[in-house]
Amino acid sequence: MTSKHVAELKSIVRTGKVLTDESDRFSYSYDGSFGSYLPDAVVQARSTEEVSNIMKLANREHIPVYPRGQSTSLSGGPLPVKGGIVLDCSQWNTKLEIYPDDLIAVVSPGVLTAKINEAASQFGLMYPPDPSSSHVSTIGGNLAENSGGPRGLKYGVTKDYVIGLELVTPEGHIIRTGGKTIKNVTGYDLTKLVVGSEGTLGVITEATLKLLPKPKAARTAMVVFSDLVHSGRAISKVLTSGILPSKMELMDQSSIRAVEDYQPLGLPTDAEAIILIELDGHPLAIKDEMNTVSTICWEVGAREVKVAKTESEAAKLWQARKLVSPAIVRIKPTKVSEDATVPRSKIPEMFERLKKIRDQYKVDLVVFGHAGDGNLHPNIICDKRDTEEMIRVEKAVEEIFKTAIELGGTLSGEHGIGNMKAPFMEMELGSIGLEMMKRMKDAWDPNHIMNPGKIFAEPGQKLVLRDE
Amino acid sequence: MTSKHVAELKSIVRTGKVLTDESDRFSYSYDGSFGSYLPDAVVQARSTEEVSNIMKLANREHIPVYPRGQSTSLSGGPLPVKGGIVLDCSQWNTKLEIYPDDLIAVVSPGVLTAKINEAASQFGLMYPPDPSSSHVSTIGGNLAENSGGPRGLKYGVTKDYVIGLELVTPEGHIIRTGGKTIKNVTGYDLTKLVVGSEGTLGVITEATLKLLPKPKAARTAMVVFSDLVHSGRAISKVLTSGILPSKMELMDQSSIRAVEDYQPLGLPTDAEAIILIELDGHPLAIKDEMNTVSTICWEVGAREVKVAKTESEAAKLWQARKLVSPAIVRIKPTKVSEDATVPRSKIPEMFERLKKIRDQYKVDLVVFGHAGDGNLHPNIICDKRDTEEMIRVEKAVEEIFKTAIELGGTLSGEHGIGNMKAPFMEMELGSIGLEMMKRMKDAWDPNHIMNPGKIFAEPGQKLVLRDE
Repeated sequence: MTSKHVAELKSIVRTGKVLTDESDRFSYSYDGSFGSYLPDAVVQARSTEEVSNIMKLANREHIPVYPRGQSTSLSGGPLPVKGGIVLDCSQWNTKLEIYPDDLIAVVSPGVLTAKINEAASQFGLMYPPDPSSSHVSTIGGNLAENSGGPRGLKYGVTKDYVIGLELVTPEGHIIRTGGKTIKNVTGYDLTKLVVGSEGTLGVITEATLKLLPKPKAARTAMVVFSDLVHSGRAISKVLTSGILPSKMELMDQSSIRAVEDYQPLGLPTDAEAIILIELDGHPLAIKDEMNTVSTICWEVGAREVKVAKTESEAAKLWQARKLVSPAIVRIKPTKVSEDATVPRSKIPEMFERLKKIRDQYKVDLVVFGHAGDGNLHPNIICDKRDTEEMIRVEKAVEEIFKTAIELGGTLSGEHGIGNMKAPFMEMELGSIGLEMMKRMKDAWDPNHIMNPGKIFAEPGQKLVLRDE
Repeated sequence: MTSKHVAELKSIVRTGKVLTDESDRFSYSYDGSFGSYLPDAVVQARSTEEVSNIMKLANREHIPVYPRGQSTSLSGGPLPVKGGIVLDCSQWNTKLEIYPDDLIAVVSPGVLTAKINEAASQFGLMYPPDPSSSHVSTIGGNLAENSGGPRGLKYGVTKDYVIGLELVTPEGHIIRTGGKTIKNVTGYDLTKLVVGSEGTLGVITEATLKLLPKPKAARTAMVVFSDLVHSGRAISKVLTSGILPSKMELMDQSSIRAVEDYQPLGLPTDAEAIILIELDGHPLAIKDEMNTVSTICWEVGAREVKVAKTESEAAKLWQARKLVSPAIVRIKPTKVSEDATVPRSKIPEMFERLKKIRDQYKVDLVVFGHAGDGNLHPNIICDKRDTEEMIRVEKAVEEIFKTAIELGGTLSGEHGIGNMKAPFMEMELGSIGLEMMKRMKDAWDPNHIMNPGKIFAEPGQKLVLRDE
């Protein structure tokens, strides 16, 4: 980028700032994953017309553009790996409108995801997707990555709630996809293509989201198992009993111990697994269903089934799950958080295989996550300054990816591909499958300026978790 | 097509037949919409490898190919408008596998949709999408068109239940999209792009479908209104009361009278509207919820609320709705069945506008459909041999499309675009929106052999409902 480009950017952007100081650019050089890449400029955008003009300039001059929310990405989504412009949409929170009669919300990209649910809640409605980051991440980032979360089990993921988008194309055109209706089969579903495309097909400048009636009640149970395999069976039996819990989260022994070391909650540190189950819906229904869930858990060998009697008791049970992430980084400073996902029936086998990987590569592997939908979070705790350890971690991560795919699963359930998992795409998709995706990218972004370096690997690119 | 092409087709296809007799070709020249177009050949396919070889031949020789299920399409999806090969997948029903532990089904394209739900039901599971045609239409056709149905209100449409596909590309390559996991963010969502693309991006040869636990019970109510506007308010109030019915279907006075003329069921022919509401879920929950629904309906001015006490009583209430289609074609032989969809809050206004259109163009307009999700079915009853009438019908249909779009809705909620609505795409999508779709088509099907003439209009193409 030249100073002429910066001057043109400044003439385009009237609502926000154009930052070019090194210290500013440094704050935009990293995300929640690995590596640090300095952009040439940062633009804080707050209007569709501005984004359109920025993209027109970038396309004309072949300058890379990286849309960015709060940068909590765990896969490198917003990293400016090839320099150019970081397009910061995190300040763009001007619109958060709820239309209760249409059961929809219309939002700007910089609105924090949790705020949408809060606003909907005032009308007795709910925006179900609940990534763990929802209090700090923006809906724009959630849309780019198609974020999941615990409630995915019953309610699905971000994509399932997006019915319309305003999008600026890589060439700077403004289009609208989908609309305000739940049913829409007019042409190709660009909405669901763009959601989850990790910012490689355009900049989302507005979204129309579907809302649901808010469930009247919820109940939580904590189920303790001495044997990890029994917990796998419990998950399976509950899910085929005709009951669909709103959440079904697992913590393995390492997670339990890490939490208990971090903040003593009285968790059973000798247990091999804890499952947290939440049911939501009509109070009478979930009371009855919770009895069924308890019976099933006892039948498959649970050691303890503890049903929360009050909301605050329930909140306390969920606190254990929430503390896993902060707790495990106390053991070692670096956390490699994966989200390899397998068909539900393969969860017990995935546990076995993860154990082997842990032993083979001598890594600190902690497993927790959304067991009910097969979306586990194997986390490796390590120290990125220890090169020898990080090489073992890289090999273990690669093995986790291979295992998930071998078991009929996928590289990523909710964190995205970014630059981190790009080298493994062909392993899952095959060369033609990948080629068909590249054709779409080429057709929409002929100059490859829209979040380059993401999803599609460079020739010879490998997973590197060490700072280069 | 030359006889050499036919000979090559015959050498490729070993599991089914290649039909070239005129009488055979004639049976494949039409669907549930308008017009008749003779293909050069019909191929009954039953294997992915065969489809791959057929597509390779077709791509090499630039021969159009039209995938086809049972041809119940109401928008012209399978019509061989440019000659070439009809690829009949309706006999290909070899695979219907339920994996209860994974909550998925794997199916061949020719399986009848209702059979999937039947098979799932044996494991206490449900395949929710229920297009009215589900007993005669194939899942392959449903996938191509992204079929809806009454249960769309609560459960969504076909796309919401497809997690993986085997697809033969227009160039004859076999790829797999998605997989067997509920969560999957590995690359672009080709699955949801192909579902609903109306056979223009490839041939679906296998699908992996998500299943849900089957609800334990259901209850139905029939609510009668003297005033159509009151019925609109009832829909709105129920949907914002925290209750999500599994179905919410509307019949206007013309529908009620047509049914009662056709088969006397004791429906109130002086009523302006009937709403049929089904709640499903836990028996205790829906009992309580039905009380709330009744109260709401009385409050907004219902004339009668009749809750079915038994399953057979419920079935009798639903019979009225099922008879609308056969009943209205008794009035006149031709039925132009539209599916323009509006945001839910615009339903009352849509009713007003439809009334005006009926009067202005003097057409027999009957309105029924999935009121709960804004997906109405304005049907015009006419006689296609009456050219003067059909010209008025064409104008009225065009006006319906315009109105739906003006009200923030869409051309098509569930029937698809086909060749029929192609001329109106730009009106809804704008020229750039349409252009971005065309780029995808061009990137995947450079020779435009995959179901040509669909979705994208030829220059100057107009809606014609008269036989040419």
